[in-house]
Amino acid sequence: MPKRILVIGGDARIDRLYASMRRDSLEVSRYTEDVPLKTALNKADVVILGLPASTDGSTVYAPQLLRPILMNDLLRLMDGRQLLLGGKFDEKTKSLMGIYGIKYVDYLRREEFEIANAIPTAEGAIQIAMEELPVTLNGSNVIVTGYGRIGKYLSRLLGALGATVTVFARRQTDFALIKSAGLNPASYLYLPDAAMKADVLFNTVPARVIGRDALEALRGGLIIDLAASPFGCDLSEAAEAEVRVIRAGGLPGKVAPVTAGEIIKETIYNIFRETGE
Amino acid sequence: MPKRILVIGGDARIDRLYASMRRDSLEVSRYTEDVPLKTALNKADVVILGLPASTDGSTVYAPQLLRPILMNDLLRLMDGRQLLLGGKFDEKTKSLMGIYGIKYVDYLRREEFEIANAIPTAEGAIQIAMEELPVTLNGSNVIVTGYGRIGKYLSRLLGALGATVTVFARRQTDFALIKSAGLNPASYLYLPDAAMKADVLFNTVPARVIGRDALEALRGGLIIDLAASPFGCDLSEAAEAEVRVIRAGGLPGKVAPVTAGEIIKETIYNIFRETGE
Amino acid sequence: MPKRILVIGGDARIDRLYASMRRDSLEVSRYTEDVPLKTALNKADVVILGLPASTDGSTVYAPQLLRPILMNDLLRLMDGRQLLLGGKFDEKTKSLMGIYGIKYVDYLRREEFEIANAIPTAEGAIQIAMEELPVTLNGSNVIVTGYGRIGKYLSRLLGALGATVTVFARRQTDFALIKSAGLNPASYLYLPDAAMKADVLFNTVPARVIGRDALEALRGGLIIDLAASPFGCDLSEAAEAEVRVIRAGGLPGKVAPVTAGEIIKETIYNIFRETGE
Amino acid sequence: MPKRILVIGGDARIDRLYASMRRDSLEVSRYTEDVPLKTALNKADVVILGLPASTDGSTVYAPQLLRPILMNDLLRLMDGRQLLLGGKFDEKTKSLMGIYGIKYVDYLRREEFEIANAIPTAEGAIQIAMEELPVTLNGSNVIVTGYGRIGKYLSRLLGALGATVTVFARRQTDFALIKSAGLNPASYLYLPDAAMKADVLFNTVPARVIGRDALEALRGGLIIDLAASPFGCDLSEAAEAEVRVIRAGGLPGKVAPVTAGEIIKETIYNIFRETGE
Repeated sequence: MPKRILVIGGDARIDRLYASMRRDSLEVSRYTEDVPLKTALNKADVVILGLPASTDGSTVYAPQLLRPILMNDLLRLMDGRQLLLGGKFDEKTKSLMGIYGIKYVDYLRREEFEIANAIPTAEGAIQIAMEELPVTLNGSNVIVTGYGRIGKYLSRLLGALGATVTVFARRQTDFALIKSAGLNPASYLYLPDAAMKADVLFNTVPARVIGRDALEALRGGLIIDLAASPFGCDLSEAAEAEVRVIRAGGLPGKVAPVTAGEIIKETIYNIFRETGE
Repeated sequence: MPKRILVIGGDARIDRLYASMRRDSLEVSRYTEDVPLKTALNKADVVILGLPASTDGSTVYAPQLLRPILMNDLLRLMDGRQLLLGGKFDEKTKSLMGIYGIKYVDYLRREEFEIANAIPTAEGAIQIAMEELPVTLNGSNVIVTGYGRIGKYLSRLLGALGATVTVFARRQTDFALIKSAGLNPASYLYLPDAAMKADVLFNTVPARVIGRDALEALRGGLIIDLAASPFGCDLSEAAEAEVRVIRAGGLPGKVAPVTAGEIIKETIYNIFRETGE
Repeated sequence: MPKRILVIGGDARIDRLYASMRRDSLEVSRYTEDVPLKTALNKADVVILGLPASTDGSTVYAPQLLRPILMNDLLRLMDGRQLLLGGKFDEKTKSLMGIYGIKYVDYLRREEFEIANAIPTAEGAIQIAMEELPVTLNGSNVIVTGYGRIGKYLSRLLGALGATVTVFARRQTDFALIKSAGLNPASYLYLPDAAMKADVLFNTVPARVIGRDALEALRGGLIIDLAASPFGCDLSEAAEAEVRVIRAGGLPGKVAPVTAGEIIKETIYNIFRETGE
Repeated sequence: MPKRILVIGGDARIDRLYASMRRDSLEVSRYTEDVPLKTALNKADVVILGLPASTDGSTVYAPQLLRPILMNDLLRLMDGRQLLLGGKFDEKTKSLMGIYGIKYVDYLRREEFEIANAIPTAEGAIQIAMEELPVTLNGSNVIVTGYGRIGKYLSRLLGALGATVTVFARRQTDFALIKSAGLNPASYLYLPDAAMKADVLFNTVPARVIGRDALEALRGGLIIDLAASPFGCDLSEAAEAEVRVIRAGGLPGKVAPVTAGEIIKETIYNIFRETGE
């Protein structure tokens, strides 16, 4: 385990991460503006930033600080023996880290992070569906597009809640997996047909898999879109078909900040183990 | 199936019930103030009231009408060949129906209604927990007090969502059933112990099963109370222990009015079958 | 807990029960022919017999003893302060116990025993189906007749294994429960229809619920009958329709004697608690 | 779909495959010794062999034929426009197919085949465990080593049956997946500890992951080994620790030949679609 950790910025999840690391008796401090950044950095072996590390590509994401910290300033003050951890580093920051020779790991890109994060994402999606639908999930007809990490966990939960679940995918291997999970596999050709009788569609694919025909078949219905940009459908096409679209990004931090903080912590501990910190 | 049905009053669920019966091609009409009550009643074989049939014991529950209908007036205008269906008839109304010789069935007292209603109740409880808790249900520690219809379905769902579920009950037979459902049974003696590490407690017992000790052990925690009066704990005792209590009655109508309407409809169709209407 | 226990006779389950009670540090002994029965009985507060207590109505079921013990001799030598536990006491024995004033409990008639026993029964039924069918249970079409303790647990397991399960029952309340368990309810009128495409039928009803029409529809198929006499169908009618029938009674003792012994032990401990032994 | 198919050799699964293809109205024939091989081949666009295609590396696996067909003779008589499908082609056969310029696909190497085959394998493993164990799987303590296709499906089924399942794996991503499936992940370091209280160990890893320490901890216990050579443990080491090892290869064909035949058929149809036959 690393000797001294400095946490800078981040949202509620990072607050939880910080509190949880203290409970684990790690030597961890949180950057405040009481001391100069250089002084704080000098006492750290590892620096942890939020998720995302930066929202604008030039400053550290730190809504609780009065004065923004330039990413360039932070990196300039770090040295090559320190380890920088952050979520979703942008291209500009990555190129700066290259220039300054900073050792870094993007914890968001870790596979175990994505797997664990599928749980609060799926629960958040189910919460939204429960809030929005006038019927119970039990007995309802739901569509899930995509069978990656989130699609897998979400469709299993929906099935356990008693919904009839049809999962749309592209590959034969996914069809076999979907069938073996006790769910109905289907290819995108049949999306409009299935949409006719669906109570809700959950999208997990960051691509326009829901076309005009499917939207028309969903008329009056609901899409809960869990994917990143460019999302699963066009908003104006959806509006024309009177389909309501809820773009629900960043669910883990919103619906379960404590769990989300724990997941970041577990991922960071794995990184420590592997880098021998 | 009955020849002619008249629906009077009720909330969103009764609206759905009415719409759904029309889709089933039943000869059903909804009472409005455009015609005299007597005229409307004369054309009906069956009269359906809301859930509850009356909220004050003297008028028919009908928030959409401008002038209240006295229960006594309704019953006086009915005759012995007509069937009156309603939910939760109070003692005063039952005695009036006796006096006027009115044939009636309380659909809320039907066992299949209670069983089916456990589903939207449990989903509603899970929705509230998801909204309130900063952790996911997956991996959380939950307590369910009582193993009746709602306790059974709710604890199974919580288990399917990945929670560790401890169910408190009194009878050896319930312990055996809880174990065979893959959940942990416990007797109330151990409620304070279990409460120490619980993220949330769902109560389904209309009795003060959660005493001061258990509340103290839950300090800072959450109770979602699904039971009817007198509920599972005392509110001021809970406040002293800083335990938040959400009394969540009537969930089906609130979280899933369409499903709730369908359940009333199915129950009423069963009554029709049995009474030969 | 009782001071001194004497175990007489019984099969492999009673052997396990005896071994398990010793591990629990109870003062328990097993009757052998080395000492006279009277001497052994004199040192006992509780006497435990097998399941069944007697197979012929006149001797104690004790296949491991050289000389049979007459039930009348056993009861004659006991006194009114001793407690006699056994399974499935027959009428003759019950009348004798009345005459001799013997305190007794039939552990087989205890509800928690029946609930717990449904688990090894259902697993045994699934084992037989796996052995007999040329298809996997996943993806198969199965029928369960009856929705009592065994029907409930068995149909849930079959669903979890990925079978499409149709459960036949008589009561509206059972239909509601079956639906809420995520299974398909049906009334017996439709048994022949469902039988047409079923891979296997599990019967749990001790009554002739599977008539000629259903057998004809099952032609070439398989029935696993878990019910007691008079069983679910007539064997010669089944033979005419070329339906194979496996009457699988007493599964717990056969497929899981250790678990079956534990279940008897738990039931007996509950009896001890209630009788204050 | 291909015009004309010739099926040669194979076991019960290939019999089922052949019957099922006929029901699908494909123009398919089965090679018998009534006509010369050359004549039969001349009328075929696709040739299907068994699983494995050859058991000895030199003759076609065809136990139902009186005279063995040399693989070399078969390949020599085929031409480059024909497609040869078979399972588990050995190196010698593959080199011969290269020499003769034969187009071929090994259906066993298809990912969707492996995924679908995990189902009958897992059910077969559960059947064996039910037959061998004196306890029910419900309430038992089981270990699964490996979390590939079979490990995933098997551990899920065991959990659904009520067993406490600990899954041993190596990767952080597998740990996250195991946790999200509601099972207990563990690293191999702790295998001996877990083995102390396990009722049965299912191995799915074709590597010696179960060492002397784990075997010693399992003393008197049972291993069901589903992996291919070199299997999960050494048989003489297991014998020393009095651990019974059941090496259960080829389960799909043994426990569910019809399902196994269907899986081969589905895989072959996918191949047809992709090759445009």
